[in-house]
Amino acid sequence: MSKQVEFQSPEDKIIGKHVFGNLYDINPEDLNNEQLLKELVLNAVKIANMNLVEAKSWSFGGKKGGVSVIALIEESHIALHTWNEYNYATLDVYTCGEDSDPQAAFKFIVEALKPRRYQVFFADRSSS
Amino acid sequence: MSKQVEFQSPEDKIIGKHVFGNLYDINPEDLNNEQLLKELVLNAVKIANMNLVEAKSWSFGGKKGGVSVIALIEESHIALHTWNEYNYATLDVYTCGEDSDPQAAFKFIVEALKPRRYQVFFADRSSS
Repeated sequence: MSKQVEFQSPEDKIIGKHVFGNLYDINPEDLNNEQLLKELVLNAVKIANMNLVEAKSWSFGGKKGGVSVIALIEESHIALHTWNEYNYATLDVYTCGEDSDPQAAFKFIVEALKPRRYQVFFADRSSS
Repeated sequence: MSKQVEFQSPEDKIIGKHVFGNLYDINPEDLNNEQLLKELVLNAVKIANMNLVEAKSWSFGGKKGGVSVIALIEESHIALHTWNEYNYATLDVYTCGEDSDPQAAFKFIVEALKPRRYQVFFADRSSS
């Protein structure tokens, strides 16, 4: 029996890493700037060493309005939602594969948006 | 001072509820069926009392291939990613507002995909 069969490769599963958080007290002008937010997500994709499939953004009016940006990155995604009247945003960076770095993407967007405080969590989305 | 000013409405914040999980040992034929998976997500949107903005799906080939479905639901999203060779899927249902029920949407998709086992987690994505 070869070693390849005896010892399963550590990569022979789906390595899923999901970093997500809530960002408080951000400048509301930034949170209503759809173009800025979309660019932040697109730059985060590069910083995290991910491959973009498609990115879309939407702008919502009303008291609880804001912007949503969702990027599909092969088998994973980045989702940024903002509520400009609440100075509030949430960010999810969920990547698969050992080569990508969702924490770097999360950190990049937080540093750009400068929340006065934020929470960050990690969830293991691996297949075993 | 009026009562409206004295007592802030409990709804005067963003109520964010994020239910997410990892689903193991699913029939791989289902996990490669883009049309089925997109319909599941669209039905889950209705069951959870959410308003669809846009839904998209993508199919990926290769050893770690599968299907991704992402639905933007006003200020929130549903994301379903599958890996058919690993019989594996992950599901995120993230909703805002008191009227939506992300747990019902999560349960509906799990019951349709019949994983042999799954993990489910809850994250509070509220603005305060």
